[in-house]
Amino acid sequence: MTTAARQSSPAPIPIADGRAARLACRSGAVTGSTAGIAPGYVQGNLAILPKALSADFLRFCHFNPRPCPLLAMSEPGDPSISALGVDLDIRADLPSYRVWQDGRLVDEPTDVTKWWRDDLVSFVIGCSLSFEEALLADGVPIRHIEAGVRVPMYRTNIACTPAGAFSGPMVVSMRPMRPAQAIRAVQITSRFPAVHGAPVHIGLPHLLGINDLAKPDYGDAVAIASDELPVFWACGVTPQAVIAAAKPSFAITHAPGAMLVTDLINTQLAVL
Amino acid sequence: MTTAARQSSPAPIPIADGRAARLACRSGAVTGSTAGIAPGYVQGNLAILPKALSADFLRFCHFNPRPCPLLAMSEPGDPSISALGVDLDIRADLPSYRVWQDGRLVDEPTDVTKWWRDDLVSFVIGCSLSFEEALLADGVPIRHIEAGVRVPMYRTNIACTPAGAFSGPMVVSMRPMRPAQAIRAVQITSRFPAVHGAPVHIGLPHLLGINDLAKPDYGDAVAIASDELPVFWACGVTPQAVIAAAKPSFAITHAPGAMLVTDLINTQLAVL
Repeated sequence: MTTAARQSSPAPIPIADGRAARLACRSGAVTGSTAGIAPGYVQGNLAILPKALSADFLRFCHFNPRPCPLLAMSEPGDPSISALGVDLDIRADLPSYRVWQDGRLVDEPTDVTKWWRDDLVSFVIGCSLSFEEALLADGVPIRHIEAGVRVPMYRTNIACTPAGAFSGPMVVSMRPMRPAQAIRAVQITSRFPAVHGAPVHIGLPHLLGINDLAKPDYGDAVAIASDELPVFWACGVTPQAVIAAAKPSFAITHAPGAMLVTDLINTQLAVL
Repeated sequence: MTTAARQSSPAPIPIADGRAARLACRSGAVTGSTAGIAPGYVQGNLAILPKALSADFLRFCHFNPRPCPLLAMSEPGDPSISALGVDLDIRADLPSYRVWQDGRLVDEPTDVTKWWRDDLVSFVIGCSLSFEEALLADGVPIRHIEAGVRVPMYRTNIACTPAGAFSGPMVVSMRPMRPAQAIRAVQITSRFPAVHGAPVHIGLPHLLGINDLAKPDYGDAVAIASDELPVFWACGVTPQAVIAAAKPSFAITHAPGAMLVTDLINTQLAVL
């Protein structure tokens, strides 16, 4: 989708690009989920931490790139992230936020300007919306989208490599697929390491310590047909769960489903 | 492996390159399997058919590239195939051949010069030895090689697209792998479409009409551990079985395991 193409044809959806989506969130016109907003544009998970914790969290992301693919981080105190968008204000451009003190949820505002501090560092982490778009564009169906529910996610017995206060198990998302679709999904998502990349597992969930696919730890269960295998990807809930467990003195995250919409195009994340 | 590297270090095996391997076969020094001969060099399955059948067989290969990836074909009557090797004589450069008349095996010579005709067209089809080398080089173990047996192969319920007299089911080879190895194997073998490419199936053999993995239709059974999935690739036995079923008036094939060794380097077949 080129800019010219977008300008010359009627916009298929109300919000035509990433910047417009951010402005709609900033203005309060969008307060809920960003799913389906500005198709084609990269969305990211947000974690904001004090500078004193940021070096450890950066190390954690570096050590665990599959669940924590870091798209960008800010300078301390700077609410802009020019690598991700023009006129981006991380304090206002998400529909809603969660503010944490010592691991307790203390606020769920639509703007965190009043909570801002000069030592806060923003981390934006790639999310599966980008590779799901690539799968759908290739004709690979995605069950939870068809069913209109959240993707099922599971804690695993795979320990992330710890860094300082940050440690915990890898969380995975699961999408049931027929074997040929699973093989195609490996090919497609391998091109997108910045948004979790290839699956981490196929077919034998008990090896991950997952004993009942009908009971996800996060999200919603989906049906698995007899001709399908469960396919598992590392999930961006991993760093969220790790931050929650670390109980930092202060943190801000996006509210579930209310992501940062960037100016990056999903296909630009493809390495091939 | 560069020529310089081969020249400057002692040859690790008796036969240093593809041409030397062919000359060893031509001289009668090698009469059995070519497995392990001239590591790094592409080996191919051979099918030789009269020109009257060659257009249909070429169509069959074109319609079914996963089981029948055509590396090269000759001009009618020409025993050389310059695309595959210097000084190549397809009548003498394989260790042993099978000669067929009306579907009956009539000879199993080490040289088919006496059977040669001016209307014969040679087809050389990629084989899994090339991608197995890439898997092993990446640290992905291959069970039948570890066990010292032939790869297990199975007829499936997947019908090849027919062309003229040529039709039949796809035959697949199976390698048991742990899920993460299977995902890695998809990535590696996807780079090699000229030698069967990515797997065609993972994990649910009954969907292919395979009811007992312990009873392969060709080759030998191998053990599958409880933490492994069977991974299936389209197999070069498919065109052999299709030719056998078509019962052409005349045909020559390689004897099992006795392949054509070419001058091509396996890594040159990688598309990425």
